[in-house]
Amino acid sequence: MGNRKLRMGMIGGGPGAFIGDIHRMAARLDGRIELVCGAFSSDPEKSKKAGEDLLLPPDRAYGSYTEMIHREGELPDDKRMDFVSIVTPNHVHFEPAKLALQNGFHVVLDKPMTLNLAEAQKLKQLVDQTGQVFCLTHTYTGYPMVKEARHLIGMGKLGEIRKIYVEYPQGWLATRLEATGNKQADWRTDPARSGVAGSMGDIGTHAANLAEYVSGLKITRVCADINTIVEGRVLDDDGAVLLKFENGASGVLLASQVAAGEENNIKLRIYGEKGGIEWEQEAANRLLVKWRDKPAEVRRTGNNVSYLSKVAAYNTRTPAGHPEGYLEAFANLYRNFANTVAARMNGEQPEPEWTDFPDAEDGLRGMLFIEKVIESGRSDKKWILMDES
Amino acid sequence: MGNRKLRMGMIGGGPGAFIGDIHRMAARLDGRIELVCGAFSSDPEKSKKAGEDLLLPPDRAYGSYTEMIHREGELPDDKRMDFVSIVTPNHVHFEPAKLALQNGFHVVLDKPMTLNLAEAQKLKQLVDQTGQVFCLTHTYTGYPMVKEARHLIGMGKLGEIRKIYVEYPQGWLATRLEATGNKQADWRTDPARSGVAGSMGDIGTHAANLAEYVSGLKITRVCADINTIVEGRVLDDDGAVLLKFENGASGVLLASQVAAGEENNIKLRIYGEKGGIEWEQEAANRLLVKWRDKPAEVRRTGNNVSYLSKVAAYNTRTPAGHPEGYLEAFANLYRNFANTVAARMNGEQPEPEWTDFPDAEDGLRGMLFIEKVIESGRSDKKWILMDES
Amino acid sequence: MGNRKLRMGMIGGGPGAFIGDIHRMAARLDGRIELVCGAFSSDPEKSKKAGEDLLLPPDRAYGSYTEMIHREGELPDDKRMDFVSIVTPNHVHFEPAKLALQNGFHVVLDKPMTLNLAEAQKLKQLVDQTGQVFCLTHTYTGYPMVKEARHLIGMGKLGEIRKIYVEYPQGWLATRLEATGNKQADWRTDPARSGVAGSMGDIGTHAANLAEYVSGLKITRVCADINTIVEGRVLDDDGAVLLKFENGASGVLLASQVAAGEENNIKLRIYGEKGGIEWEQEAANRLLVKWRDKPAEVRRTGNNVSYLSKVAAYNTRTPAGHPEGYLEAFANLYRNFANTVAARMNGEQPEPEWTDFPDAEDGLRGMLFIEKVIESGRSDKKWILMDES
Amino acid sequence: MGNRKLRMGMIGGGPGAFIGDIHRMAARLDGRIELVCGAFSSDPEKSKKAGEDLLLPPDRAYGSYTEMIHREGELPDDKRMDFVSIVTPNHVHFEPAKLALQNGFHVVLDKPMTLNLAEAQKLKQLVDQTGQVFCLTHTYTGYPMVKEARHLIGMGKLGEIRKIYVEYPQGWLATRLEATGNKQADWRTDPARSGVAGSMGDIGTHAANLAEYVSGLKITRVCADINTIVEGRVLDDDGAVLLKFENGASGVLLASQVAAGEENNIKLRIYGEKGGIEWEQEAANRLLVKWRDKPAEVRRTGNNVSYLSKVAAYNTRTPAGHPEGYLEAFANLYRNFANTVAARMNGEQPEPEWTDFPDAEDGLRGMLFIEKVIESGRSDKKWILMDES
Repeated sequence: MGNRKLRMGMIGGGPGAFIGDIHRMAARLDGRIELVCGAFSSDPEKSKKAGEDLLLPPDRAYGSYTEMIHREGELPDDKRMDFVSIVTPNHVHFEPAKLALQNGFHVVLDKPMTLNLAEAQKLKQLVDQTGQVFCLTHTYTGYPMVKEARHLIGMGKLGEIRKIYVEYPQGWLATRLEATGNKQADWRTDPARSGVAGSMGDIGTHAANLAEYVSGLKITRVCADINTIVEGRVLDDDGAVLLKFENGASGVLLASQVAAGEENNIKLRIYGEKGGIEWEQEAANRLLVKWRDKPAEVRRTGNNVSYLSKVAAYNTRTPAGHPEGYLEAFANLYRNFANTVAARMNGEQPEPEWTDFPDAEDGLRGMLFIEKVIESGRSDKKWILMDES
Repeated sequence: MGNRKLRMGMIGGGPGAFIGDIHRMAARLDGRIELVCGAFSSDPEKSKKAGEDLLLPPDRAYGSYTEMIHREGELPDDKRMDFVSIVTPNHVHFEPAKLALQNGFHVVLDKPMTLNLAEAQKLKQLVDQTGQVFCLTHTYTGYPMVKEARHLIGMGKLGEIRKIYVEYPQGWLATRLEATGNKQADWRTDPARSGVAGSMGDIGTHAANLAEYVSGLKITRVCADINTIVEGRVLDDDGAVLLKFENGASGVLLASQVAAGEENNIKLRIYGEKGGIEWEQEAANRLLVKWRDKPAEVRRTGNNVSYLSKVAAYNTRTPAGHPEGYLEAFANLYRNFANTVAARMNGEQPEPEWTDFPDAEDGLRGMLFIEKVIESGRSDKKWILMDES
Repeated sequence: MGNRKLRMGMIGGGPGAFIGDIHRMAARLDGRIELVCGAFSSDPEKSKKAGEDLLLPPDRAYGSYTEMIHREGELPDDKRMDFVSIVTPNHVHFEPAKLALQNGFHVVLDKPMTLNLAEAQKLKQLVDQTGQVFCLTHTYTGYPMVKEARHLIGMGKLGEIRKIYVEYPQGWLATRLEATGNKQADWRTDPARSGVAGSMGDIGTHAANLAEYVSGLKITRVCADINTIVEGRVLDDDGAVLLKFENGASGVLLASQVAAGEENNIKLRIYGEKGGIEWEQEAANRLLVKWRDKPAEVRRTGNNVSYLSKVAAYNTRTPAGHPEGYLEAFANLYRNFANTVAARMNGEQPEPEWTDFPDAEDGLRGMLFIEKVIESGRSDKKWILMDES
Repeated sequence: MGNRKLRMGMIGGGPGAFIGDIHRMAARLDGRIELVCGAFSSDPEKSKKAGEDLLLPPDRAYGSYTEMIHREGELPDDKRMDFVSIVTPNHVHFEPAKLALQNGFHVVLDKPMTLNLAEAQKLKQLVDQTGQVFCLTHTYTGYPMVKEARHLIGMGKLGEIRKIYVEYPQGWLATRLEATGNKQADWRTDPARSGVAGSMGDIGTHAANLAEYVSGLKITRVCADINTIVEGRVLDDDGAVLLKFENGASGVLLASQVAAGEENNIKLRIYGEKGGIEWEQEAANRLLVKWRDKPAEVRRTGNNVSYLSKVAAYNTRTPAGHPEGYLEAFANLYRNFANTVAARMNGEQPEPEWTDFPDAEDGLRGMLFIEKVIESGRSDKKWILMDES
């Protein structure tokens, strides 16, 4: 790609859509990505307005994603967007992603991958066929200490893994917020836009992905208690899942959006024969490593920390003690994606650290998780297999 | 009883039995209970030796609990023990408790109540019939902040309860410690002495009791994943249980003895419509109260804290900031039991704070929990009812 | 300024200068500032290279700041930089800032303001005379919870302020790092480039500024213990200062760069008649508010938190529980500065939240602090007045 | 002493005197000390009543300490108290301690040692002359993790010590509590009963003792800011002290009783060349050990913790994770004192762990600290030497 920024087009992310701002800040942080165009809303007027607010030229704020993808495709090489970032509700994931891939654009897609498993399977095939770079924004895998945990476990430091606890408690849906005009709550609680799951799709998939990413183990069976607690709501707003992993380890996943008073403290604990790790977003720059017969260790983020793994250090921007947060974790996904895209453009082999972002396979597993835990929630059978058949 | 200390006889608690020491320190702390005799071991020599170490007169260190109960029964009123404290392994709970009750002695009994549910049902009947005072040492209910949480929930401060998470992670059985001569591990992993459950009986019952005590809600259904992780072990050393409560609330109970690096951080979180509470033993003097729309509150132990409930204040000994711990929580059980016994002796009505200790009903529910989670662990059926039929 | 990004030119921030990267990320985050040029190094070749790495056109990477300021001044209105960001060592603060101000550019300047108090006085005069917007990057004032604390105190919630503890412990200079070729350590320990103070200038001024900002009170007297602990070092690497404030409150400031094992956990505690606040960078999204007679409160960052002050909410980007960190605090300075500059350009009155960034007066006070604590460190007199005479 | 409990007589500790209860619980916990008599109040009626409440025989509740010491001295060997525990306000420390020592009784004395330095010097001489065992209850040195810290530093693990921060913030005297009839506040704010210092004597001496105990270093110079913040109060209720230690290390001591909202979180941080330790009472079972180039370690209390020093393990009663608190720390002082007394009685050499409790030398240093910091607070001279001349 030579000496230039990657050009991003955004689909969704207009007024009231908080995640669009997050994606933009994350993309911007490292100075390697430039927002050049967008179809920010299905309402062309709103899209124009958003483009203006984002200081884009009027002709790059499109009235629809189909228009954007086609018109950008006709622009000269030195102007055309390189990739799309799709930040719409779940029911508008598959079509724009498909169109973008088919028209030669790389794709960043918010999670969960699609509205349902069938779409996810098709999208995964398309990614494989087109060979475009695809990133699904399971943000929490972007934290340096999450990567450090994965590294330690991958190196066998904890011995064989036996136990995995992952939880994601939220409280923001403890009342029927969707009845008050809150846009975030509105689509997330609507089956037509969210899919078969509410909380399990919105945050349960984050938790499942984090557990698999750090442990390096696939979930093979689930036994779920799925609840709709707030009256008048259709989709689940709470659940708990017993887990079995491919190596025989067992685990538990908790995800609730009605844990009144909770924010977003996603937390992971993994235990092996020799010790355990503990990480939580609220203290994101700390990784506790507990040992059977030694004092526990406190590992810390920081670009000047001597003992960190290469991959953790690579995903760190500030000296130890200057906290990095959610936006930096998110930015790591964008930066690694961008580096991979740039390597592709330049015909170079990407560094292993660059390709370390969630991909279509992760997205497909997330959709499988959704389908299976919802199936389990409705079943009298104890265990449901996590396979696609 | 007039102006005197209550006289305690101990069954068990000889050399190598850590819990005997704990009981003795707890009983001693407030100066209202005096150890006067014991049958500290099934080996009369060891019992003698223990009596000597404990500065007892030789004739009050008995060779067996039957001898102790009978001989003490023959002593004059002003010398005879008032109650027994039974701190033996589970298989030696029922018989001595029965004998003590039948001979007019009050009973403090370590948990779980008995070797199996049938024994527990019989023991509960005996307690009801004899009318003796009976305390089961679910220690964690003795913490002031646990009582404060129960009070807040009982007052309806959180609104209707929706969600209960309770966990008890330990790591001390992450290796096959029972093969190394460790007495604690030895009997706890032996079905003949421990019963049908290992971890679920030893710590799972503590967690279940804590959840029911604080929420004021009974568990009605369980769905359990019960595991024996360390090779060569017979009983469970790990498990996770999905819970349903009588009001429709759902929950999760985690109990593991193979979470390498963990100590004894039993932790409880309960969420209602308006907020949630969080308590953990590692920060035992703090109760977090989280609210939907207000800053979270940090409530603190302390005999000088103005905002605490009467029951929390009553169970506190030191000014705020001077931490109270496990022994003080344990001592609260003994003190409240002793006050209740003394009121009984004096023909007085005990204060409500005095009778606030786990009783035979709690013990029975613990045994029911054990039977049902083990049954659930072996079943392909998703939910198992928590009733005695 | 119409619908465009502000154009930033950077002085300093070439290879090995960590703070340059930090400034650039902070400036970039909100998409309202664009780096258009720089004099990144006093070595023209290095400056060119840095410009290339930063994807700047070759003609905007200048060989010196004088060249940059003059050449940019000759560019047309729609291309010329709007402000300079100066991120050089202390001895290269005054001259470029002066030149920029005199040539009509606004200025962002890294702290401490200058090499010595005399320079600071002149620079403050220049800012006053030119009327250009000037921001000194005392980053920690950018944290939302720091602003919340200031707000609560300003509203009188704590009553009259009595006690202020502020501390900034670091450990990175616990060995003679400057002898190993570390550029950061090198200039910070050199009087010619750092000024009369080492640790007191580098981090002590941050602590002093934070205390004054949050309390709204000026330091009036100091009594300092100033130490050079690592052998071979010339400037102080450690110190502690007793403080008196204008309202009679007293305080303590700790700053050390040899507290081995510490990172950057700047921490502030302020107590008034009714309660106290506690904030520390390691848990930056939390403000503890302690009360004399009520449970302590935990206030939390989040753009969806209902109880926060307007100013705290305004400086927040993510929902509660998604941590914001050092870069976001830094970005708040840049964003507020940029909003103020844009209002100036558009002839509009800036909102009160926009002008909330450290200015030349803060810078001058920082230099006064440095001079006085170093003077105090050398004096046998107990108290040294903090005035300019 | 043979096979018996040590017999304790108490001076002070009647109604409303919280510290008397604390001493009694601490003395009782381990079952090696028995309260046999007391002069609980200067009012004989109140003393009788207290004796009754404590279940003592009427003839062992004395009307004055002189009566108690003389009458107990006349009792036969197998009945007479072995030692006195003095828990009165400071002005009633010297005389009863002197009388007890002169009459052959060992002494436990609450801190600070005496009303003034002159008394302390005399008392120290008396202890040396009589050879009785003497313990001053600087409770915080009884914590296992405090002893672990002392051990690590003594072993040279941190290298040469450079920096010591110790703080003791309280808020209970943030209002003029002494005017409301609070007995604790009343004598502590009265020079006739407290001595020349208020907060510096009550809690400052604890902090100074903790710093010297753990570091193994003596304070040689002080520079103090001593404040009386609450109107109408005579003695200091707040202060901060710059410290110099015998090896050249510097430090800071903070002690305040007007830090509204604070409880009793005494905290110590010590830094050496290689790392630092951090301990605070609020998390008393944890010792953080921070290293320059390795992950920090979390050391934990527990009688089953393999890596602890012998002295830390010896002072622990419960398995890791079952928190021990203030009363257990206090009980360690009593137990170690009792073991030393018993060894003395039996003509045996006490184990090194047994004699590890604060003694008359510590008490003398505490009184010196009080005199010197108050002198410094009134002086224009920067540094005041900590010597007795």
